[in-house]
Amino acid sequence: MSLDTLLDEYEAGRITRTDLKRKLVHSSFADAGCAKIDHHRELRAGGPEVVYCEGKTPEQVAAIFTEIVRHSGYALGTRASQEHHDAVGKFFDARYDCVSRLLCVGTPPVDLTGKIVVVSAGTSDLPVAEEAAGTAEFLGNRVDRHYDCGVAGIHRLFFIMDDLADASVIIAVAGMEGALPSVIGGMVSPPVIAVPTSVGYGANFQGLATLLAMMNSCAPGIAVVNIDNGFGAGFMAHKINKRAVTGAV
Amino acid sequence: MSLDTLLDEYEAGRITRTDLKRKLVHSSFADAGCAKIDHHRELRAGGPEVVYCEGKTPEQVAAIFTEIVRHSGYALGTRASQEHHDAVGKFFDARYDCVSRLLCVGTPPVDLTGKIVVVSAGTSDLPVAEEAAGTAEFLGNRVDRHYDCGVAGIHRLFFIMDDLADASVIIAVAGMEGALPSVIGGMVSPPVIAVPTSVGYGANFQGLATLLAMMNSCAPGIAVVNIDNGFGAGFMAHKINKRAVTGAV
Amino acid sequence: MSLDTLLDEYEAGRITRTDLKRKLVHSSFADAGCAKIDHHRELRAGGPEVVYCEGKTPEQVAAIFTEIVRHSGYALGTRASQEHHDAVGKFFDARYDCVSRLLCVGTPPVDLTGKIVVVSAGTSDLPVAEEAAGTAEFLGNRVDRHYDCGVAGIHRLFFIMDDLADASVIIAVAGMEGALPSVIGGMVSPPVIAVPTSVGYGANFQGLATLLAMMNSCAPGIAVVNIDNGFGAGFMAHKINKRAVTGAV
Amino acid sequence: MSLDTLLDEYEAGRITRTDLKRKLVHSSFADAGCAKIDHHRELRAGGPEVVYCEGKTPEQVAAIFTEIVRHSGYALGTRASQEHHDAVGKFFDARYDCVSRLLCVGTPPVDLTGKIVVVSAGTSDLPVAEEAAGTAEFLGNRVDRHYDCGVAGIHRLFFIMDDLADASVIIAVAGMEGALPSVIGGMVSPPVIAVPTSVGYGANFQGLATLLAMMNSCAPGIAVVNIDNGFGAGFMAHKINKRAVTGAV
Amino acid sequence: MSLDTLLDEYEAGRITRTDLKRKLVHSSFADAGCAKIDHHRELRAGGPEVVYCEGKTPEQVAAIFTEIVRHSGYALGTRASQEHHDAVGKFFDARYDCVSRLLCVGTPPVDLTGKIVVVSAGTSDLPVAEEAAGTAEFLGNRVDRHYDCGVAGIHRLFFIMDDLADASVIIAVAGMEGALPSVIGGMVSPPVIAVPTSVGYGANFQGLATLLAMMNSCAPGIAVVNIDNGFGAGFMAHKINKRAVTGAV
Amino acid sequence: MSLDTLLDEYEAGRITRTDLKRKLVHSSFADAGCAKIDHHRELRAGGPEVVYCEGKTPEQVAAIFTEIVRHSGYALGTRASQEHHDAVGKFFDARYDCVSRLLCVGTPPVDLTGKIVVVSAGTSDLPVAEEAAGTAEFLGNRVDRHYDCGVAGIHRLFFIMDDLADASVIIAVAGMEGALPSVIGGMVSPPVIAVPTSVGYGANFQGLATLLAMMNSCAPGIAVVNIDNGFGAGFMAHKINKRAVTGAV
Amino acid sequence: MSLDTLLDEYEAGRITRTDLKRKLVHSSFADAGCAKIDHHRELRAGGPEVVYCEGKTPEQVAAIFTEIVRHSGYALGTRASQEHHDAVGKFFDARYDCVSRLLCVGTPPVDLTGKIVVVSAGTSDLPVAEEAAGTAEFLGNRVDRHYDCGVAGIHRLFFIMDDLADASVIIAVAGMEGALPSVIGGMVSPPVIAVPTSVGYGANFQGLATLLAMMNSCAPGIAVVNIDNGFGAGFMAHKINKRAVTGAV
Amino acid sequence: MSLDTLLDEYEAGRITRTDLKRKLVHSSFADAGCAKIDHHRELRAGGPEVVYCEGKTPEQVAAIFTEIVRHSGYALGTRASQEHHDAVGKFFDARYDCVSRLLCVGTPPVDLTGKIVVVSAGTSDLPVAEEAAGTAEFLGNRVDRHYDCGVAGIHRLFFIMDDLADASVIIAVAGMEGALPSVIGGMVSPPVIAVPTSVGYGANFQGLATLLAMMNSCAPGIAVVNIDNGFGAGFMAHKINKRAVTGAV
Repeated sequence: MSLDTLLDEYEAGRITRTDLKRKLVHSSFADAGCAKIDHHRELRAGGPEVVYCEGKTPEQVAAIFTEIVRHSGYALGTRASQEHHDAVGKFFDARYDCVSRLLCVGTPPVDLTGKIVVVSAGTSDLPVAEEAAGTAEFLGNRVDRHYDCGVAGIHRLFFIMDDLADASVIIAVAGMEGALPSVIGGMVSPPVIAVPTSVGYGANFQGLATLLAMMNSCAPGIAVVNIDNGFGAGFMAHKINKRAVTGAV
Repeated sequence: MSLDTLLDEYEAGRITRTDLKRKLVHSSFADAGCAKIDHHRELRAGGPEVVYCEGKTPEQVAAIFTEIVRHSGYALGTRASQEHHDAVGKFFDARYDCVSRLLCVGTPPVDLTGKIVVVSAGTSDLPVAEEAAGTAEFLGNRVDRHYDCGVAGIHRLFFIMDDLADASVIIAVAGMEGALPSVIGGMVSPPVIAVPTSVGYGANFQGLATLLAMMNSCAPGIAVVNIDNGFGAGFMAHKINKRAVTGAV
Repeated sequence: MSLDTLLDEYEAGRITRTDLKRKLVHSSFADAGCAKIDHHRELRAGGPEVVYCEGKTPEQVAAIFTEIVRHSGYALGTRASQEHHDAVGKFFDARYDCVSRLLCVGTPPVDLTGKIVVVSAGTSDLPVAEEAAGTAEFLGNRVDRHYDCGVAGIHRLFFIMDDLADASVIIAVAGMEGALPSVIGGMVSPPVIAVPTSVGYGANFQGLATLLAMMNSCAPGIAVVNIDNGFGAGFMAHKINKRAVTGAV
Repeated sequence: MSLDTLLDEYEAGRITRTDLKRKLVHSSFADAGCAKIDHHRELRAGGPEVVYCEGKTPEQVAAIFTEIVRHSGYALGTRASQEHHDAVGKFFDARYDCVSRLLCVGTPPVDLTGKIVVVSAGTSDLPVAEEAAGTAEFLGNRVDRHYDCGVAGIHRLFFIMDDLADASVIIAVAGMEGALPSVIGGMVSPPVIAVPTSVGYGANFQGLATLLAMMNSCAPGIAVVNIDNGFGAGFMAHKINKRAVTGAV
Repeated sequence: MSLDTLLDEYEAGRITRTDLKRKLVHSSFADAGCAKIDHHRELRAGGPEVVYCEGKTPEQVAAIFTEIVRHSGYALGTRASQEHHDAVGKFFDARYDCVSRLLCVGTPPVDLTGKIVVVSAGTSDLPVAEEAAGTAEFLGNRVDRHYDCGVAGIHRLFFIMDDLADASVIIAVAGMEGALPSVIGGMVSPPVIAVPTSVGYGANFQGLATLLAMMNSCAPGIAVVNIDNGFGAGFMAHKINKRAVTGAV
Repeated sequence: MSLDTLLDEYEAGRITRTDLKRKLVHSSFADAGCAKIDHHRELRAGGPEVVYCEGKTPEQVAAIFTEIVRHSGYALGTRASQEHHDAVGKFFDARYDCVSRLLCVGTPPVDLTGKIVVVSAGTSDLPVAEEAAGTAEFLGNRVDRHYDCGVAGIHRLFFIMDDLADASVIIAVAGMEGALPSVIGGMVSPPVIAVPTSVGYGANFQGLATLLAMMNSCAPGIAVVNIDNGFGAGFMAHKINKRAVTGAV
Repeated sequence: MSLDTLLDEYEAGRITRTDLKRKLVHSSFADAGCAKIDHHRELRAGGPEVVYCEGKTPEQVAAIFTEIVRHSGYALGTRASQEHHDAVGKFFDARYDCVSRLLCVGTPPVDLTGKIVVVSAGTSDLPVAEEAAGTAEFLGNRVDRHYDCGVAGIHRLFFIMDDLADASVIIAVAGMEGALPSVIGGMVSPPVIAVPTSVGYGANFQGLATLLAMMNSCAPGIAVVNIDNGFGAGFMAHKINKRAVTGAV
Repeated sequence: MSLDTLLDEYEAGRITRTDLKRKLVHSSFADAGCAKIDHHRELRAGGPEVVYCEGKTPEQVAAIFTEIVRHSGYALGTRASQEHHDAVGKFFDARYDCVSRLLCVGTPPVDLTGKIVVVSAGTSDLPVAEEAAGTAEFLGNRVDRHYDCGVAGIHRLFFIMDDLADASVIIAVAGMEGALPSVIGGMVSPPVIAVPTSVGYGANFQGLATLLAMMNSCAPGIAVVNIDNGFGAGFMAHKINKRAVTGAV
């Protein structure tokens, strides 16, 4: 809505000053003690406020969840521990997965039909891949998983080629030399979100080598998120899939 | 097509052995002397073969264009010079833009209705932003441009908020502290492709500082391409938009 | 005092040779066993000697505090633990804050009227922000705090714009992409001291990405202190505010 | 001004809708073709819009200068060349200094009485030191210069100690080991803005070694700007001095 | 030869003291003015002395070639220019290749039957691949070349799989994400020497990203040489092939 | 086998469609729950599937070993702990070495006569050197060890020169300045695999300094594996030696 | 001794073949199980074999000490723990200092009159400074210590200037910005050995910032040893002082 | 001279107040326009003021030389060009060497008998080695040169072992893997100053790899100067040798 329209509506009395002010700053937010909660994020930025649990106490996480769920009916926590689960579980029927470390309460009303495919290179990439897959599922997407498909055994990818080609978007999770997104990007058509993991040793430098390799991919149609950022990949994939299945905009 | 279907078709005589072999390796490619040209890329990987012109002689570029255009009717060259244009222009009606350094022949048959919005922070980011915009346009996308909207004057972004919110996908191009994608990602809903540029001096390290900042964005729904890689951003955006407007998959 | 004046005073017998010698080297210092304490720092360098407690034993810290407080009546310790507090508390009425890890005894006689505003991006930046705020308060400044105002929800900054514009100096504390100082520096007039924090993961590299981003800010009127160096920011802000409120020099 | 006050004034008819809109986005900007010019920056961000000339054509710079000077009566360009001077000189009485590469038209109405002292370590740091000094002078500050005062001859600093102690703010410019700000910060009271230069060779890495050294200074009251960023240091010093001499806020 | 045997031979008069001394230091070397030439390298270290021409004048290269060829009948220069060729060509029948920049005089007496396969990812890797291939050929190896086989079109590698499987040793040359050696190492059995090239831009950092990726390969049987070091790869491959075909040791 | 031969065999009925499909993807693999096991790796890639134990639970490792040993009769685990040994030992007669952390079951049928020599610089390099030696021995190679032969006492290398000269391939393991491979490569003829270790402190950066030094070796005939990657060096040496002793290909 | 002289002596029967062989390799060494001990190092390389204790078991250290002391009567261990002391103390009258972590048995016969001055910047640099001082003292040098003399209080250095000027060689130990060696090197004449320490936080990177700063010192007559390498500095200073006081060579 | 002595002399009238003031700041300096010249450096810091010519105009260099030579009778310029030589040659009988790029006028009165040995690894290290050797010679030292003695042909060092053992101090200049100082430090007794050069390519990073390798040397008695800093090494060696031959202090 343009600024003029907004002022017209206000002057015409169709919105109150309170509404105007809220719209002018384009959002509102509650206060859960240690963190401001941004209830308009979903409308504004295409997804719910997500709680990064690491470094927060179980009590803080429970308070933030309570505030969010009370408002919207569902909430997602990342990098959560069993202790966070226990604290939140006292108030809500919470689901916790110890591999992806995702903590979920409720389900958003979205139910998308397009498919997100998550591919990972090695067994050690599992937690990051699951964080991506679990995030996308929580946000209402259908997710297919194919793990342990690294490029050192390239034939494994051929078995899943049809599934890859069908995806709205592919999330490729890999550590070490990080070649998986390049190979996939050269084989099939969907956009690929590359997630470098910190799996490796020696000259890997906690995933930096993998990140740089993915950045330098010779296949177009690839973009990269931060090291081990499964959540970010799942969220980005959700945004892309949402537009794909709604024929969006 | 699954492996079984393919073998069934071969055994039923519906495809020849030659066809089978070609399909088995999932592609075919011609030879333009110095480079193998991959004519099936469009089917397989969602976009035409694109020629990276830098470091190739005008004659090499002309030969590769000839091979590609003869097969598909159109071709795109990136990082092209006027000399490349002159060489290709002898054979085709070629369009060259000296800011984006894109060299185009013909037009792909795609005509997508979804909109890609390209935003850039400073005037120095123009060549990269134009490479992204021009690539997306060549591939059949509608593109809106908003330049010189850096975060040091954050109010500029508010004027274009509605346009941003309407996009299928946003390409955010910035150098220096690279905060533009974060701010946009926190304001509106579409997925954001962040392009760091090598604009800056001192501790910028040819865009590395910008790349790292974008990688560390606190706003979800952002993925990053290589420094100055306008082409890669335009191509990725095309893939996302294509699925959005076709309600794809 | 100029060299000539000093020598004049000495020759006129107004100061002794001992005094002269001490003044010539421009200071004097006591010895608390493991550390030389610099009692003239306040006159010479604009602030009291501050004790960096990390890596020192509780006994060492108590001894140094004793020496300082005996001389000036007040002292400040940074990166202090509860154990340091206990040891110092045996001798003085000491105040300890476990978030900022500041340990204070007494109050300097300064009471400045200008205002320092401390803004932080996320809840995880709290300890660094509090170290900055607490340091500035101990040194006699009035401090306003605005936390959880990161750029991924840029509208939050608009609520506090008037407060920001009123400051003598702003301290902007942020991790991850570190865009907060740029956005503030583009919105309001006061000088901004940027403090990168080591909050983040993956390609953050313990705050290096944030530091580089802040260094590359496109908004003028920003200078940067070391990663997590809340104390340094608070001290620098104090120096600036002191001159502002005294119409200094 | 708070949001409510602003709306009150608008409803009371004391400001027009046009004014309201401008205030709401907190600025306005003109368009000089390739760059948006931000005329409210001075009110909003404490200083005039400054033109970074490097990478712009003489014609572009002349157009931007014309737009700015027409509005405010004065303008400053940094990293300017003789060609930029020639182009701007056709329209205005422009002053150009080939060491600092500053290009000035007119003079802002500010005339500050506080003093900024610029100290540099070696003769090679001259261009950066002059960019800092010239920027501060253009903005109306009194500037003292002391060059070639590196720490390898520490006695040189003692001759200028009184002058350093008198400053509102000190700008310390150094390359190589970058120790100058630490030494000054330990000797005198004013806040110090440290400017690393890219002077050096071998393991200097274009100023990175110097930047890191300054970041790690053991003297409090120091903040750092980007490598070779004399302009940034001069502007920051101006903001600090302006508050000091006006007893600001 | 053991030390005892050597001394026995000397005492038995079968070798002179001069011989003994030469053998004791395990070599001898001539002096071509600016460089000591090591004629025993071939016996001692498994290959002839090779001249790194870059940074040497044509006259220096000619003098060194003269000294080497006079002694052994053949010589190899790397990173040579046309000028080096002209200078050496005055004295010998020299062969120069402007792509690999190798300069050859004569042919070593070795003629190995095992096969070295050189694979490269892109057309830009050609000079490095040719330096590797040309070096190995000069040293008497049979070399097969397969260029433009990057992983973004993985199907290309399947056409040459049999040839790869037959090799004594494979040299895999790639820039950008450097995934080629991993994919080959997972497909076929021979040892792979990986050569990162400095081809790429942005976050490639002149081949560092590629080098790190290759170092982190998840496929065993891969070792890496320096960036762009085609010569080193060719020489290493020669040593491996030599042992393979002679059933060596 | 070429694609045509394979299709001929299929059409002639000599292989079933199932076989054809398996061969077309060039492998088969079993599923041990968390990891796909690649039984054709030995035929395809010249060595058995090796289990990287670190980060896997004892139960996972036991399951993977069971699957592998059941198929081939032997298996190798790297970076194993005593707990892994205990878990595997319940099912097989397993050998564990706590220095190299290798865990072995059974013996591959290969018995190579060529010799691999492992040289290490310091006593701290022992675990990496033993990982290399143990890996090569498990794969059927004869291995000679010479430890504590660093370049700071260069005379030590002269005692073992004859042994070095006899090797099929040399593995040189060193930390700190990493000069051992250069010195050996200049003394004797066999190819050298250099293994940087993370031994060192200060500016060693966990082996990066050593890795870079080895990459920059001025002696040809050297290639480098990842930091601390004893397994990778042993495996690469095995591949080279296997070809040497079989007069391979 | 030249090679000819050695052979003359052997042929004249003045040395046996055994002696000759030992001399030819220029040393001899014993074997203490896990480490070769180099008894001729003192003659050859100007100092005793020193035991780096970290990472060795108490039993290993005791065995190596036994071997060394049995041969020369004294030994020095660095980075030793109390456990190492206990183990060695069972066999010898050993001295252990828990700050420098040096473990000494006996005293070398050298007693040098020249003076080494060790200066350190902060109290946290103490362990490294003491490692340097203790090493030099063990090797027979007279050592003066001046601690807590960092450049942020430059006046402290003036009190000790005469002592500094008298030294044979100065060891300057500092963390953070590492400016101490530059300032000393500009004040007095003796050669300065700079020791960066890993003291600092944020952008210090475990001493890398300090190391780079020292490398870039603008004062000549400075050379640098590795981060925290107090032993290396003490040993280097010993070598320089030994030549100074013996009027050496 | 101690502070007390100085004040005694002043009070006794033996020195004037002017003298006292000058002595108090411990030096005096002249002004050659763009640079302050430090005439007391020789007394204070053990060597003459040296002019770093790169980046200065011929006229500036000539003015500085004039000022220095007029005062002391001799001067040294480093990184000088032929143009600098021409400008200085108009006033003095100047000697210029185009390899080391040293520019000398006159000779200091020192004539030291101890010997400095400069060893370099490759022919490309020549300019740096000559800068070291020429600097030391200008300062009055006897210098022996041994070039092209890299570790890839370790036997070359054995020919010069006696000469190395005789030195007061050794300067070891090397690029690439930088192993030369370690090998020399393990062979002979004198202190070694290591000079990394920027010779190399690929992963050398303009000498950083070499610098790190030298920093990590496992041989004690080595300290390192900046990359390509032949002057610094020559000056440091002079300071050490001066003390050695004068039985100094």
